[in-house]
Amino acid sequence: MLEQINSPYDLKKLDIKDLPRLSEEIRQFIVEKVSKTGGHLASNLGIVELTLALHYVFNSPVDKIIWDVGHQCYVHKMITGRRDKFDTLRQFNGLSGYTKRTESIHDIFGAGHSSTSLSAALGIATARDLKGEKYHVIAVIGDGALTGGMALEALNNIGRSRKDVIVILNHNEMSISENVGSLSLYLSKLRTDPTYNKVKQEIDNLLNIIPPIGKSLHKYIEKIKDSIKQLVVPGMFFEELGFTYLGPIDGHNVEELIEVLERSKKMKGPLLIHVVTKKGKGYMFAEKRPDKFHSAAPFDIETGKFVGEGKDSYSDVFGKTLAEMALKDEKIVAITAAMPEGTGLIHFAKLIPDRFFDVGIAEQHATTFAAGLAVEGYKPYFAVYSTFLQRAYDQVIHDVCIQKLPVVFAVDRAGIVGEDGETHQGVFDISFLRAIPNIAIMSPKDANELVEMVKLSRNLDFPVAIRYPRGKAGEYDISRKPSFPLGKGEVLLEGEKIAVFALGRMVSKSIDAAEILKGHGINPFVVNLRFVKPLDEELILEISNKVDLVVTVEDNVIAGGVGSAILELLNDKKVYRPVLRLGFPDKFIEHGDVESLFKKYGLDSQSIADTILQRYKEMRGS
Amino acid sequence: MLEQINSPYDLKKLDIKDLPRLSEEIRQFIVEKVSKTGGHLASNLGIVELTLALHYVFNSPVDKIIWDVGHQCYVHKMITGRRDKFDTLRQFNGLSGYTKRTESIHDIFGAGHSSTSLSAALGIATARDLKGEKYHVIAVIGDGALTGGMALEALNNIGRSRKDVIVILNHNEMSISENVGSLSLYLSKLRTDPTYNKVKQEIDNLLNIIPPIGKSLHKYIEKIKDSIKQLVVPGMFFEELGFTYLGPIDGHNVEELIEVLERSKKMKGPLLIHVVTKKGKGYMFAEKRPDKFHSAAPFDIETGKFVGEGKDSYSDVFGKTLAEMALKDEKIVAITAAMPEGTGLIHFAKLIPDRFFDVGIAEQHATTFAAGLAVEGYKPYFAVYSTFLQRAYDQVIHDVCIQKLPVVFAVDRAGIVGEDGETHQGVFDISFLRAIPNIAIMSPKDANELVEMVKLSRNLDFPVAIRYPRGKAGEYDISRKPSFPLGKGEVLLEGEKIAVFALGRMVSKSIDAAEILKGHGINPFVVNLRFVKPLDEELILEISNKVDLVVTVEDNVIAGGVGSAILELLNDKKVYRPVLRLGFPDKFIEHGDVESLFKKYGLDSQSIADTILQRYKEMRGS
Repeated sequence: MLEQINSPYDLKKLDIKDLPRLSEEIRQFIVEKVSKTGGHLASNLGIVELTLALHYVFNSPVDKIIWDVGHQCYVHKMITGRRDKFDTLRQFNGLSGYTKRTESIHDIFGAGHSSTSLSAALGIATARDLKGEKYHVIAVIGDGALTGGMALEALNNIGRSRKDVIVILNHNEMSISENVGSLSLYLSKLRTDPTYNKVKQEIDNLLNIIPPIGKSLHKYIEKIKDSIKQLVVPGMFFEELGFTYLGPIDGHNVEELIEVLERSKKMKGPLLIHVVTKKGKGYMFAEKRPDKFHSAAPFDIETGKFVGEGKDSYSDVFGKTLAEMALKDEKIVAITAAMPEGTGLIHFAKLIPDRFFDVGIAEQHATTFAAGLAVEGYKPYFAVYSTFLQRAYDQVIHDVCIQKLPVVFAVDRAGIVGEDGETHQGVFDISFLRAIPNIAIMSPKDANELVEMVKLSRNLDFPVAIRYPRGKAGEYDISRKPSFPLGKGEVLLEGEKIAVFALGRMVSKSIDAAEILKGHGINPFVVNLRFVKPLDEELILEISNKVDLVVTVEDNVIAGGVGSAILELLNDKKVYRPVLRLGFPDKFIEHGDVESLFKKYGLDSQSIADTILQRYKEMRGS
Repeated sequence: MLEQINSPYDLKKLDIKDLPRLSEEIRQFIVEKVSKTGGHLASNLGIVELTLALHYVFNSPVDKIIWDVGHQCYVHKMITGRRDKFDTLRQFNGLSGYTKRTESIHDIFGAGHSSTSLSAALGIATARDLKGEKYHVIAVIGDGALTGGMALEALNNIGRSRKDVIVILNHNEMSISENVGSLSLYLSKLRTDPTYNKVKQEIDNLLNIIPPIGKSLHKYIEKIKDSIKQLVVPGMFFEELGFTYLGPIDGHNVEELIEVLERSKKMKGPLLIHVVTKKGKGYMFAEKRPDKFHSAAPFDIETGKFVGEGKDSYSDVFGKTLAEMALKDEKIVAITAAMPEGTGLIHFAKLIPDRFFDVGIAEQHATTFAAGLAVEGYKPYFAVYSTFLQRAYDQVIHDVCIQKLPVVFAVDRAGIVGEDGETHQGVFDISFLRAIPNIAIMSPKDANELVEMVKLSRNLDFPVAIRYPRGKAGEYDISRKPSFPLGKGEVLLEGEKIAVFALGRMVSKSIDAAEILKGHGINPFVVNLRFVKPLDEELILEISNKVDLVVTVEDNVIAGGVGSAILELLNDKKVYRPVLRLGFPDKFIEHGDVESLFKKYGLDSQSIADTILQRYKEMRGS
């Protein structure tokens, strides 16, 4: 049946009764494809029926369906003519894993990060009304994404606007891991209430407890207050914000979904439809561990085991090191914004749950919460992906750095991350952090150095960022002590004529490039910078003074990156040398495997060597 | 009486009956001092009784009082031993206009930006509980600040934490201008309800309308739903989030405030006390126009007129130009995050209210809302202060620039702003915006050029940032058309040996510096860059090739600023010249009048000339 669906129009030709069978076919297709490419499995399995119902009832792209985060858009992509491209999902030059405006007219608003859909929906609905056009605007947002501040800002604005915006709350009690916060508790309460019956029963109860008239007013109000709380119309929270609330609806009952969505088309004003789904639905391993299968590596369908499973990532190295430190150091606290697995803090959470805080998708709060803990003498480590730290940029400046509080930002997924593409490439953090006073920025060349940096940061009494990449980390020894002080780099290869200053994972690539260059009779210095801020000025100036060409290698954009920092230093200290700055250019870096991307942008070892060689020849020639 | 209060301890010695008189003395003091120094008048006049009550009941600094934004802390500062410094308020080397940890042990958490207090309070309360200590943590937050996403993230986390945190909601129905959004509407509803009586009456009504048992369930639920909504316990919104709600309380009745605060000390778990105050209370002009007296210039007490009132600021130039354009161009829409006055968009709002959107203190939402409007063919202008744009950094990257949507950021208060200090100096925007692909960044040398840039931006089909300073703008002609294309600078002074590349308001300072240098026989080129991105590469290379020394002058930090951009360009194009980069150093810039700060940091005309002269002499000598 799936073979016949090449557009939403094809879907609408089907009988509603056929949709459950189609759902099963879609699930099989997704499990099969994602097992090979990797991808966001659990969220897509959970949203099959809802996606079918949306495209059955609404008329995309005239009606605008906006997917929050966009990681649950696989079914949407299949239905909108992209099924045949799923072998290339998330691959270099292939289909994106998120919604993307350049990919389809059905992708109304691109995403990747969380909590943006409601603001976009209000913008689109406002434009529609200004133009006097008629169509539906639908935002699909998870309960996890709803805890992000900007989603709440948008709810506040949509409610007051009175505009026709349909918000579908996809409630799976997960963001990426288990959802947290009062809102989550509130939604669960709604979910477990067999609501309408409950209301009736509670009214009866209320009638029984209301005391005879004449009794002291204040006392009985206190008594009935709790009862009224229970009784309150479902979704009161949303109703107070100006929404009409419908729900909860079984998100795997496609007939019921279609009925409710049809009804919603006739309603006016902001509407919130509370749909309950199961993340990972239909694939046992994903149902059991939706967190694990949130963003899955390629896996074996029969066993549910990931390719490469068991090897420690940089995140694991960080998480295990911090947990080990915290066992002996009660001032260490750990914070994540909904990423206990992704950041490796799960190791900390298991050992020291009392000092582990998952604040939900709320990077702004996480940062200032950390600042509050630091004010009272704690040493907070906020582990956060590089691109999500962008969400907390003001808080990093305003709450942490101005007050010079000793918060450590464990900046995971720094540099390119690969398959998640534009929205997730952590290629700006050096530029945006380097401008801020009072912060130290470091990046380890390998897992052992990460262990050392995490330990080094413990005793630094000011803000610190440690940036490290996504991916497997290689061997390491968690008992290592810091072998270097703040601001000290190391010369890894002594050489002549050329100095290569490399940062983080670009160090090993630079060493490899140096080996290639040796074959051409060139022996460059290779320096592991370790620190972006403070730079090892003494070392950089000393080595630069010895050479004719300075090369910098980083996995950040070159605008304002560590190469610029070195260029600034050399210029300011009047050590004038040509600086060949290697890094990412002034464009957003697309998705694909990391090695293909490094190659494309001239940052694999061979390309680095080639570029240096070419420049060296030019210089010799001139 | 005021003379005797030099600490919270002195305050506690007074009889409660004396506090109203003390309040009056404080108001007189504040009006008198702020009329001379300028400052946040209205918010401080509104919070006199609440501040007295807090310090009367709680034991600062053992109990932690955290002021959101911190612009309402004058009374707090007076009571905590800083009254005698009020002549220096906001002056260079004087008292800060915000809370500041380095200023007093009573300033628990510094601020300046909005919506941070709740996250900080939860961090501090968490630390307290981890340490097993006993004290109260109180956050004071306005209803405007509550619409900021991070405050809502924090509410969600505090509610679930069950920790003892007291949130004082200072409800004055204003953030800076009139507050917006559903939450505001909701709070007003609470405020106007004579609540307890209302509840009683509604319960009676409910009893009357409940139908006989047996009637169709669904029908009567629909009927009673609305009634229950009205009846609902006050503050249900907050109760659903896990708070106990108390209120509304008259914020100018100090006795009632003390009684409620005393009660709150004995309560457990998260508590929200809804206090209703009047912004500007006690000074007629501020009561009438609290928006105007939010952040006031020095003024005449008798007439309420500001010094210098009537002259157009850069914000006015922007706002008037955009309004004029929009009258003839129905695709232009304007957005502010609670700053219609501050950004000059008030001119737009008055003329074209349908295309003007004040989203409240919600920069993240504002940015993505703009992106949504752009998707549907509108041309959104989001006017926002440079440091508040930091709040939306991820949205600028993720929603606007990745999708290359034609949103214009009118970056007001770029460069140093002066009296508001560290938290408000807009000295990072060039660095953090320059790293982002797809965006153009420009800065006008004067008001006429701002007019031209606003018009130029209309036809650019990609993201644009126009940065301009706080302050008066001088004469201009709103009918001017753009006299230059994207990416073209201009040579203002032809010269030799030295080239000065200046941006924005630093252009006129550079011209003046050049005049001074002429007295020393030096005739530098002076170039108005206009564009940070794309740079006028051709012009910069051409001029640089003619000179021995390149000088860059900007009012941004030099790390990653436009000086770095030029240094990168010269290096990459192999036009090797020493670059003297003038701008702000790697530290947070304190408060004070702009001219004193420019002088201190070597950025007034004389200092610029002196630095160039010295460098030139060094070069000649070597």
